[in-house]
Amino acid sequence: MTIKKNILMLPALVLAAVLVGQSSAHAAVDPETAFVFNTFSFLIHGALVMWMAAGFSMLEAGLVRTKNTATICLKNIALFAVSCIVFYLIGYNLMYTDVSGFIGSFSLFYDPSDAEYALLGADEATPELVAAVVSNGYSVMSDWFFQVVFVATAVSVVSGTVAERMKLWAFMLFAVVMSGFIYPIVGSWVWGGGWLSELGFTDFAGSTLVHSVGGWAALTGAILVGPRKGKYAADGSVNPIPGSNLPLATLGTFILWLGWFGFNGGSQLALGSALDAVAMSNVYVNTNVAACAGTVAAMLTSQAIFKKVDLSMSLNGALAGLVAITAGPDVSSPMIAVLVGVVGGVIAVIAVPMFDKLKIDDVVGALSVHLVSGIWGTIACGIFVTGDVVAQLIGVVAIGAFVTVTSALTWLALKSVMGIRVSEEEEFHGQDKTELAMEAYPEFGIGSGRI
Amino acid sequence: MTIKKNILMLPALVLAAVLVGQSSAHAAVDPETAFVFNTFSFLIHGALVMWMAAGFSMLEAGLVRTKNTATICLKNIALFAVSCIVFYLIGYNLMYTDVSGFIGSFSLFYDPSDAEYALLGADEATPELVAAVVSNGYSVMSDWFFQVVFVATAVSVVSGTVAERMKLWAFMLFAVVMSGFIYPIVGSWVWGGGWLSELGFTDFAGSTLVHSVGGWAALTGAILVGPRKGKYAADGSVNPIPGSNLPLATLGTFILWLGWFGFNGGSQLALGSALDAVAMSNVYVNTNVAACAGTVAAMLTSQAIFKKVDLSMSLNGALAGLVAITAGPDVSSPMIAVLVGVVGGVIAVIAVPMFDKLKIDDVVGALSVHLVSGIWGTIACGIFVTGDVVAQLIGVVAIGAFVTVTSALTWLALKSVMGIRVSEEEEFHGQDKTELAMEAYPEFGIGSGRI
Amino acid sequence: MTIKKNILMLPALVLAAVLVGQSSAHAAVDPETAFVFNTFSFLIHGALVMWMAAGFSMLEAGLVRTKNTATICLKNIALFAVSCIVFYLIGYNLMYTDVSGFIGSFSLFYDPSDAEYALLGADEATPELVAAVVSNGYSVMSDWFFQVVFVATAVSVVSGTVAERMKLWAFMLFAVVMSGFIYPIVGSWVWGGGWLSELGFTDFAGSTLVHSVGGWAALTGAILVGPRKGKYAADGSVNPIPGSNLPLATLGTFILWLGWFGFNGGSQLALGSALDAVAMSNVYVNTNVAACAGTVAAMLTSQAIFKKVDLSMSLNGALAGLVAITAGPDVSSPMIAVLVGVVGGVIAVIAVPMFDKLKIDDVVGALSVHLVSGIWGTIACGIFVTGDVVAQLIGVVAIGAFVTVTSALTWLALKSVMGIRVSEEEEFHGQDKTELAMEAYPEFGIGSGRI
Repeated sequence: MTIKKNILMLPALVLAAVLVGQSSAHAAVDPETAFVFNTFSFLIHGALVMWMAAGFSMLEAGLVRTKNTATICLKNIALFAVSCIVFYLIGYNLMYTDVSGFIGSFSLFYDPSDAEYALLGADEATPELVAAVVSNGYSVMSDWFFQVVFVATAVSVVSGTVAERMKLWAFMLFAVVMSGFIYPIVGSWVWGGGWLSELGFTDFAGSTLVHSVGGWAALTGAILVGPRKGKYAADGSVNPIPGSNLPLATLGTFILWLGWFGFNGGSQLALGSALDAVAMSNVYVNTNVAACAGTVAAMLTSQAIFKKVDLSMSLNGALAGLVAITAGPDVSSPMIAVLVGVVGGVIAVIAVPMFDKLKIDDVVGALSVHLVSGIWGTIACGIFVTGDVVAQLIGVVAIGAFVTVTSALTWLALKSVMGIRVSEEEEFHGQDKTELAMEAYPEFGIGSGRI
Repeated sequence: MTIKKNILMLPALVLAAVLVGQSSAHAAVDPETAFVFNTFSFLIHGALVMWMAAGFSMLEAGLVRTKNTATICLKNIALFAVSCIVFYLIGYNLMYTDVSGFIGSFSLFYDPSDAEYALLGADEATPELVAAVVSNGYSVMSDWFFQVVFVATAVSVVSGTVAERMKLWAFMLFAVVMSGFIYPIVGSWVWGGGWLSELGFTDFAGSTLVHSVGGWAALTGAILVGPRKGKYAADGSVNPIPGSNLPLATLGTFILWLGWFGFNGGSQLALGSALDAVAMSNVYVNTNVAACAGTVAAMLTSQAIFKKVDLSMSLNGALAGLVAITAGPDVSSPMIAVLVGVVGGVIAVIAVPMFDKLKIDDVVGALSVHLVSGIWGTIACGIFVTGDVVAQLIGVVAIGAFVTVTSALTWLALKSVMGIRVSEEEEFHGQDKTELAMEAYPEFGIGSGRI
Repeated sequence: MTIKKNILMLPALVLAAVLVGQSSAHAAVDPETAFVFNTFSFLIHGALVMWMAAGFSMLEAGLVRTKNTATICLKNIALFAVSCIVFYLIGYNLMYTDVSGFIGSFSLFYDPSDAEYALLGADEATPELVAAVVSNGYSVMSDWFFQVVFVATAVSVVSGTVAERMKLWAFMLFAVVMSGFIYPIVGSWVWGGGWLSELGFTDFAGSTLVHSVGGWAALTGAILVGPRKGKYAADGSVNPIPGSNLPLATLGTFILWLGWFGFNGGSQLALGSALDAVAMSNVYVNTNVAACAGTVAAMLTSQAIFKKVDLSMSLNGALAGLVAITAGPDVSSPMIAVLVGVVGGVIAVIAVPMFDKLKIDDVVGALSVHLVSGIWGTIACGIFVTGDVVAQLIGVVAIGAFVTVTSALTWLALKSVMGIRVSEEEEFHGQDKTELAMEAYPEFGIGSGRI
C-alpha cells in the first residue's frame, strides 16, 4: 500500500462511489474499465520513465570527454539494471510495505500480487477472481513497474556529477546502496506514508524524493572524490573542460523531456475517470511549459551574464524547468508553471559558478539542475499548490540531511575498502582504456593523454 | 472551438447519439470512458509530436557541418521552447478562438478551461462538475497540449533550410513571429473554421498547414539570406557540402517517423468509439506504408539518376512520404497511400537539383520534403479523399501567398534592424565558435576554417 | 484469423461470456470499450516495435567502422521500408490467411478489412456497421500494423552480422525474400496456426520466430559471405575490430529495450479486460527484469573472463536477456525472468569466442544475442511456462533447418547472379565511398584505408 497512490486516487474513488449511487448526469467509468485505464497508464508512462535512462546516458556521454565516454555509457545502463534488481530484491519493501513512519519492511523479494497470479494461472477467469483483482483499482504489477523505473533516475543524477574519475565498481556498489536503502528509506517517509507525508510534505513526482535525493548523493560524492585534475588551477581560476559531443547531449535532453511526461503524467497514478484524465492533462501542459520556460530563461540569462548563449546551459535550463515543476505539476495555471520553470532555468545558469567557487567539480551541471532546482520546485509547490511552505522546508532539510549522511558514510566505506577514485595515471589516460580496455570512438577520438 | 475537432468528432457524436437511443446490437462506449480515451489519445500522441523536435534536431545536426552543429542544436530546442510559449501567449487564440473567417481573437494568455479547473479544485467531484467537463468530449487541456506541440514542427522546417548562416537571434525572433502570427492565422483559415475550411479545403494533419507553411517560410528565408559561401561556384556548378554526421541524420529520420504516428494518428482527434479506433488504425497503416514507399522510391530514383544510392536522399524520401500522406492519411486503401508516398519519395530526389539550379541553398533538403511534397500531398488528398482538387489548389496558393509575403516582410524587417546573416568571417569560422563560443565536437571536429 | 490471437484472447472471451451472463460482482468492460483498448494497444505497441528499427540502426552504426557506417544506416532504414511493403504485398497472407498447416495463401495485397472500410465510408455509423466491426474484438487494421512492424526485426538481425562486406543490393534482395517468404512461412507454422502450434510449440513474442529466424539467416549469410579481411589471422588468432561509435551503440540498446515493451507487451494481443491488463503488466515486469539481469550477468561474466567489463558485451547482455524472455514473458514470477535473463547475459559473452573459433565473423554479436539466446529462451519457455520441452526442441530444430536451407539457397542464388560480397578494394575503402559515394563522418572519420 502506498500513500502516494491512496491519496491521489481518493478523488477517483470518491467520485466512483458518488456516481454509482445515482445515474442521472451520466454513467461513471465502470470499475474494470477504470482498472484497465489505470494499469495502462502505469505501463506506458513507466516505459517513458525507463526511456529517461537513455536520456541520462546520452546527456552524460555528450558532456564528458571522449576518453571517458564508453565508461559513462556503461555506468548508465548498468546502474539502471542494478537499481531495478536491487529495488526488486529489497528496496520496494523498504519503501512501500508496512511503513512504520521512518522505514518499511526488510523482507526480501517483493511479491507482485497473489490475486493477480491467481487470475493469470486459473483455468477459468471466474468473476470472483476478476473482482479480487479489480477491487485494487489498478494492477499492482503495473504499479511496481512504474515505481521500479523511478529508482534509476535518482542514481543517474549521481553518475554525471562524479564522472571521469569515480571508479566503475565503486560507483556500482554505491548504486546498490542508494537504490536498496537510501532512496527507499526517504521514499517511505513521503510516498510510503511515513512521517513527512503525515506532516503535510508534498512532492507530486519527486523534485525532492528523486532529483534532490540524487543531487545530495552527487554532492557528497563530488566533495569526497575531489575535482578532476586540471579543473581548478592553483590561482583559483576555473578551467572549463568542454563536453565532447554536444548533439548527443542535446538528444539526451530531448529524451529526458519526453520521458518526463511519463514521470509526471504517470504520477497522477490513475486515469480511470474524467477527473484523473483532466488532472493528467493539466500535468502534461504544466510540465511542457515549465521546460520551455526554463530553456528560454537559461538562454537569456547566459546571454546576459556571459554575452553568449551557452548550449549546455540551455539544455540544463530545460531540465531545471522540468525538475522544478515536478513537485507540483498539478498547479492550477500554466502561468505559474512558466514562473516555476523560469526560476529553474535561471538557477541552472547561476548556480554553476557557485559550485565552481567551492571547487566542487560537477561534470554535467547536475547539482544545479537536480539539487538546487529540485529544492526550488519543492518550495514552489508549497507556495503555489499546498500553501504550506514550512512542511516543504522541513522535508527538504530532513531528506537532505539523511541522504548526505548516509551517502557520505557509503562513499567513505567504499573509499577505505577499495578506493573510489582512479589513479592519476588512469585519469590521464581515461577510464575507457584503463577500466574497459576500449575506446568510445577509436577512429576519431583524440583519446588518452588529453585533459 | 476548433472546426478541426468538430468536423472530425461528428461521426463519433452521431454514433453516440444513435447508440444511446437503442441497446440492441451492443452498448456504446459511455461518455466518461470516451472522454478518457479521447484525452489520453491527445496526451500520448502529443508527446510523440513533441518528440519530433528531437528528430528535427538530430536530422539537422547530422546534415550541417561540425562548425555549426551546436548552433543548430540550440536553435532547435530553443525554437520548440519559444514556439510553445508564444502559442500559449497569443497564437492559440488567434488560431482557434472566435475565428471570424480570416483570423481569431487577439486576446492574451489562452485559458485552458474554467470547467476543468473547477473540477480539479473542488473538494468533491460532484456529478455536475464531472458532467460539465465530460460534455466537451475530451479534456480541452489535452487538446491544447496536442495543438501546441504542432507549432514547433512548422518552425523546425525553417531552421534546417537556413542553417549555417542565419544569425541565432534573428532566427529566434522569426520563430516568435511565425508561431505567434503566421502559423496561427493561416491555421485559423482551416482548422479554426475560417474561410478555407468553408470552401472545402481539407488537410487532415497538416501537409499544407504545417509542412508547406514551414516550407514557404524557409524558401523566403533562404532566398533573402542567400546561399552559403562556396555552395555555388561562379561557373554555375554546385559544390556539395556533405553533412557531418549521417548516423545522427538517420536517427533524426527514425524519430520523425515514430513521432508521425502521433502527428497523424492523434489528428483523428478522438478515440472514444470503435469508429474512431478504426479510423486511427487506418491512419497508422497508411502513414507507415507511405513512409516505406517514399524510402524505397527515393532509393531507386537516386540509383537511377546518380548511379548511387544516396543515404540522405533516402532519409528525405521517407520524410517526403510522410509529409505527402499527412493531408489525407484517412484514405481508404494502403495501395493509395503507397502511391502517395512513392511520388513524395521521387520528389525528395528530383526537386533538389531544381532548387540548386535556382541557387536556393537548402542545407537539409527541407524545401523538397516539406514544401514540394506537402503541396503534392495536399493535392493528392483532393484526388483520393475529398474529390475536390480545386479547393485544395486554392488553399495551397492562398496559404503559400500569405506565408511568403508575411515571412518576407518579417525577414526584411529583421534584416534592416539587426541583420539576418552572420559576417563572412563568422561564417568561415562557424557559428558555434562565434555565436556560442563552443564546439560541438571539441576533440575531433575539424572545426573552423573549413568549408 | 491468426491462432496467435485466438489462443491468447481466449481467456478474455471466456471471461466476457461469463460476465455477460451475470451482473453480480461487477460489470465487465463493454465490447466496444474493449475493442478500443485492444486496438489502441496494437497501435501504441506497434509504434514502439517500429522504433526498434532505429535501435538496430544505431546499434549497428555504432559497432561497424566509420567507413561502413552510412551504408549500415541505409541498409537498416531500407530493410524496414522494404519489409513492410513486401509483407503487405505477399507476406501477411502467407503467414496468416488460410494456413494449411505448412503455409498460408499466395494471394497478393492483403486487404485490411471490408467491414472496417464500410464503417469508415458510411454516411452514418449504423449500429449494424459498428457491431460488424466490434464483433472482431479489435481493429484488424491495427493488428496488421502490429504484425507488419515485426517483420523488420528479423531482417535487422541479419544486417548486423553480415555488415561491412555484404553488397547493398544483394542484401536488399535477401530482405525481400526473407520478409516475403522465409519469415512468413515459418511464422504460419506457429502464429498462423500451422503444424507446430498444433504440436504445442509456444513462442509468445518470437524468441524463435523472430530472433532465431533472423539468427539462422544471419549465420548462413556470415558463413557464405566469409569473414571480413583481417579479422582472422593465418595463425588462428582473432583480430578484434572495434566499433567506431559506442555511445550510438548504447543508444541503440536503450531504444531496443524501450521498443521491447511494445514487442512483448503488445504480443498479449489484447487489453480489453482486467485479465489482459494484468497479463500485460506481468509481461512488462518480466521483460524489464530479464533485461536488467542480462546486463548484470554479462558485466560480471566479462569481468570474470576478461578481467575487464566490456561495454559492447554488456549491451549485448541486455539484448540477450530481452531475447531470452521473449518466448515466455508471461512466466509467473520475476525471479524466473531474472534467471532466464541471467543465462541470456552469460550466453551473450561466452558464445562470442565460440563463433570466432569457427571463423564465423559476426560484426555486432547478433548470433550470440538473437540465435543462441533465442534458442535458450524458447527452451526456457518449455521449462517454466508450458512444461513441454520436447515440443520446443522440435520447433527450434524444424525452424532452424527450414530457415538455414532456404536462406542458403537464397544467398547462393544471389551469389551466382550478382555476387554477395564487395570486392577486396571496395572492402578496403569501405562501402560508404564505393557503394554510396559519401562518408558518414566526412570531417572526422578516418575513412578509407583502415582495417
